[in-house]
Amino acid sequence: MLRFYNGKTLTMAEGCAVTEDEVWVDGDRIAYVGPAPEVLPAFERQIDLRGGLLMPGFKNAHAHSGMTFCRSLADDVPLKPWLFEQIFPLEARLTPERVRALTRLAFLEYLSGGVTAAFDMYYFRPALADCAAEDGFRFVLCGSNGPAEQVEREYVELNARSPLVTLIPGIHAEYTTSLDDIKIVAETVRRHRAPFFTHISETRAEVEGCRERHGMTPTELFDSLGLFDYGGGGYHCCYLTEHDVEIFQKRGLSVVSCPASNAKLASGIAPLKRYRDAGLNLALGTDGPSSNNALDMFREMYLASVLQKLLLDDAVGLDALEVLRAATVGGAIAMGLPDCDVLAPGKQADLTVIDLDRPSMRPIINVPKNLVYSGARDCVRLTMVAGKVLYEDGEYYLADSAERIVAEAERATREIIENQ
Amino acid sequence: MLRFYNGKTLTMAEGCAVTEDEVWVDGDRIAYVGPAPEVLPAFERQIDLRGGLLMPGFKNAHAHSGMTFCRSLADDVPLKPWLFEQIFPLEARLTPERVRALTRLAFLEYLSGGVTAAFDMYYFRPALADCAAEDGFRFVLCGSNGPAEQVEREYVELNARSPLVTLIPGIHAEYTTSLDDIKIVAETVRRHRAPFFTHISETRAEVEGCRERHGMTPTELFDSLGLFDYGGGGYHCCYLTEHDVEIFQKRGLSVVSCPASNAKLASGIAPLKRYRDAGLNLALGTDGPSSNNALDMFREMYLASVLQKLLLDDAVGLDALEVLRAATVGGAIAMGLPDCDVLAPGKQADLTVIDLDRPSMRPIINVPKNLVYSGARDCVRLTMVAGKVLYEDGEYYLADSAERIVAEAERATREIIENQ
Repeated sequence: MLRFYNGKTLTMAEGCAVTEDEVWVDGDRIAYVGPAPEVLPAFERQIDLRGGLLMPGFKNAHAHSGMTFCRSLADDVPLKPWLFEQIFPLEARLTPERVRALTRLAFLEYLSGGVTAAFDMYYFRPALADCAAEDGFRFVLCGSNGPAEQVEREYVELNARSPLVTLIPGIHAEYTTSLDDIKIVAETVRRHRAPFFTHISETRAEVEGCRERHGMTPTELFDSLGLFDYGGGGYHCCYLTEHDVEIFQKRGLSVVSCPASNAKLASGIAPLKRYRDAGLNLALGTDGPSSNNALDMFREMYLASVLQKLLLDDAVGLDALEVLRAATVGGAIAMGLPDCDVLAPGKQADLTVIDLDRPSMRPIINVPKNLVYSGARDCVRLTMVAGKVLYEDGEYYLADSAERIVAEAERATREIIENQ
Repeated sequence: MLRFYNGKTLTMAEGCAVTEDEVWVDGDRIAYVGPAPEVLPAFERQIDLRGGLLMPGFKNAHAHSGMTFCRSLADDVPLKPWLFEQIFPLEARLTPERVRALTRLAFLEYLSGGVTAAFDMYYFRPALADCAAEDGFRFVLCGSNGPAEQVEREYVELNARSPLVTLIPGIHAEYTTSLDDIKIVAETVRRHRAPFFTHISETRAEVEGCRERHGMTPTELFDSLGLFDYGGGGYHCCYLTEHDVEIFQKRGLSVVSCPASNAKLASGIAPLKRYRDAGLNLALGTDGPSSNNALDMFREMYLASVLQKLLLDDAVGLDALEVLRAATVGGAIAMGLPDCDVLAPGKQADLTVIDLDRPSMRPIINVPKNLVYSGARDCVRLTMVAGKVLYEDGEYYLADSAERIVAEAERATREIIENQ
C-alpha cells in the first residue's frame, strides 16, 4: 500500500472543498481518504506531499494525440487550405508505428501536465490501445470505420484488451462521413447499448452544411438515427440550437468543449454557461496538437473561464469551480470512467500532485481558483494512473525512457514531413 | 566571462531566425554572439545548453506586481464591486514592507517564467526600487503622485538609484486622477523630455466617461496636455479610436496589451492586428495578479495570438511571430530599455534558456511558433538578468531564499486580509 500524507487534498467528491486528509492507494485503487489514524499500517512507500495538493488527474476529453507531428507545422493560415492541402496529405503517410511514436510523445505531455486519461480519436486504434496499455496511460478511444463486421469486431476486441483502454463508438463528423457509414456505427451502438461521440457543431458552416444535406442539425440527425439512445455527446458544440440542447438534456449527453482549438481556428466560443444552466455535463478537451498546439488542461481551464466572460460581457461568467469540475469529474463522466472521477475509497487511483510552493500558487487563499487562474504545468509534481506513478519530479516511468520516446517521435515526424 | 554553448539561439535581432550560435557574457553585457571559434578564451563558467534555446528574456510591460495578495481573492464577481468593495479597502492596509514582500513573490514567478524585466505600477515605489535592486531584477517603475516637488524629486532619485531600476512618469488613469494632478506630471515630463504611460481605453465606459468629462478620448486629453510630446504609450488600449491611433503613430507611442486581464474582467479584446498594421509598437503585459491571475508571459502570448483570431473571425489573425516580438523586443522598446531587446554584443545580458526537450516543445519544426503556441513555464530552465543567473533548474539566486520570500508574502497577505 502507498500513502500520500502531509499535504492538502481536493477530492472533488464534495464540491471543491480542500481538506488535510491523507490518501492511501492499494493496487490500482484508492483504499482510504481521511485523517491519519493513530496506528498506521505498513506501507510500501510513503509520499510526503510537502504541503502540496493531491487531486484527481485531469481528463482530456477530446484529443487527436497522434497529431503531434503537426505541431507548429502550419499556424496562422486559413483553415480550409490548412486542413486539405497540408494536414490531410501528411496523414496519408501515417502508419501504426508512426502514430504510436507520435502518441507516446503526447503521453509525456499529458503526464507532466497532470492528465491521467485522454479521450482520443485518431487512426490505427489497435496501435493506440497497445501503446497506452504498455505505457500505463488510460485511453478512451473513439471512432469506428469500415464495414459493419469490422466496426463490431474492433468494438469488442479493443474493449477487452486492457483495463486501461476502452473504445466508445463514434465517427469523425457528419460532414466527413457517409450516411451509410453512420448507420453502420448505429448498429454497434444499438447492439451494445453504447454511447456515441462525434464532432458536433464546431463551426457555423458545419451546421449550415448539415441542414442543407439533411434538413437537420448534426445533433438532430444523429438523434434521429438512434445514435444517442444510450448517451454520449459531442466534441466542440460551439453552435448548439435550443432544440439541440433539449436533445442533449433528454439523452443525458455531454458537451466536450475545446476552447483553445476553437479560438485558434477562429471557430468561436462555445456558450458553456448556457449549457451548464441547462444542466448539461461539461467536459474539456485540448483537441489535437495541430490546432491548439499544446495538450495542456491548465490552459483549457483558463480559456474556458475567461472566454465565457468575454462572450457574456460579464466578469462573472461561468464560475471557475465549474470549470475545474469539467476538467476532472465532467471529463470522467463523458468518457465513461465513473471510477476515475473523484478521490474516494474504491475509486481508481488516477491522481496528480500539485506543488503549492510554486510562486503562482501563492498566497494560498483559494486553492481551486489558483488551479484555474494561475496554475500551469510547472506546478505538477507527480502523476499516477491506476495506482502507478508515471511522472514524478521531472522523471517519467513508462515502458521506454522519455529520451527514446522523444527521439522516436522526432524520427516519425521527419519521415512524414520530409518524405512527402 | 560566461559561455552558453551546445544549443540554439534566437537573438530576435533578425526576425525570429534560430541559429546554432553561442553567446558569451562579460559582466552585465553580451560580449559575443556567433559560432564557436577554434581557440576559446578562458571562461569562469560554461553553461551547456544541452540542445536548449537561448533567447532574450520576456518583458512584462504592464503589471501591478505587488497585488499578489489579491490572487484568487475575488474572482468571478462583477467588476465594480470587486474593485471598490474588495480591493481598494485592502490596499489601504498596504505598507512599504508588505508591498516589498508581495512584489518579491512576483519576482519568483517572473524568473521561473523567463521574464527578465517588468514595467510596474504600484504603491511605495522607493520600496519597489530597493527590492528590485537588491534581488537583481530589472524594474521599470511607472507612476507619480503628490505635489510637484515630490513628483520631480521621485523622478530624479529613483532614476539614479540603481542601473536595474528606472522610473517613467505616469498616472493610474484619467478616471482616477484629477486634472491638476495630471498637469503636475506633465511638468516633469516636459522638464526631462520623458515619455509618459497610463491606463488608456481599457473599457468602453472609461472612454465614454472621459468624453463626458473632457469632450475628448483619454489619448486626446493626454496629448492635448503635452504628455506624449516625448513618447510613451498606453496600457490596455482596447478601444482606441482612429484619431487615437493617429496620435499613437505621430508620437511613436506603444500599445501595451494585457489580453488575459482584459478577458478575465470582460473588458474586451484589443485589436492588435489593426494597431500593428498602423505601424504601432506592440508590447504585452500581465496586469496585476488580482485580475489575471498569473504573471505568465507564455499565457499572454497565447492569448494575444488566439484572441485576435476570434476577434477577426479569421484563423490567420496576427502572426505568432509578431506576438513573440511584442513579448520581447516590443516590450523593451515600450519600457525604454533599448539595451535589453535582443541578443547582440554590447546589449544587456537579460536572457532565458528554454528546454526544448520538454514534450510540448517537440517535435522541433518551428521553434518560435512552439514558444507561442505550445510553450509554458515548465519549459524555462534558466533566467539571467544583467549577466547574473537568478533562476536555474528550479533554484532561485536572490538576496533571500525562495522559501523565505514565499513565507514573507504569505505573512503580508494574512496581515492585510485578516486584520481588515
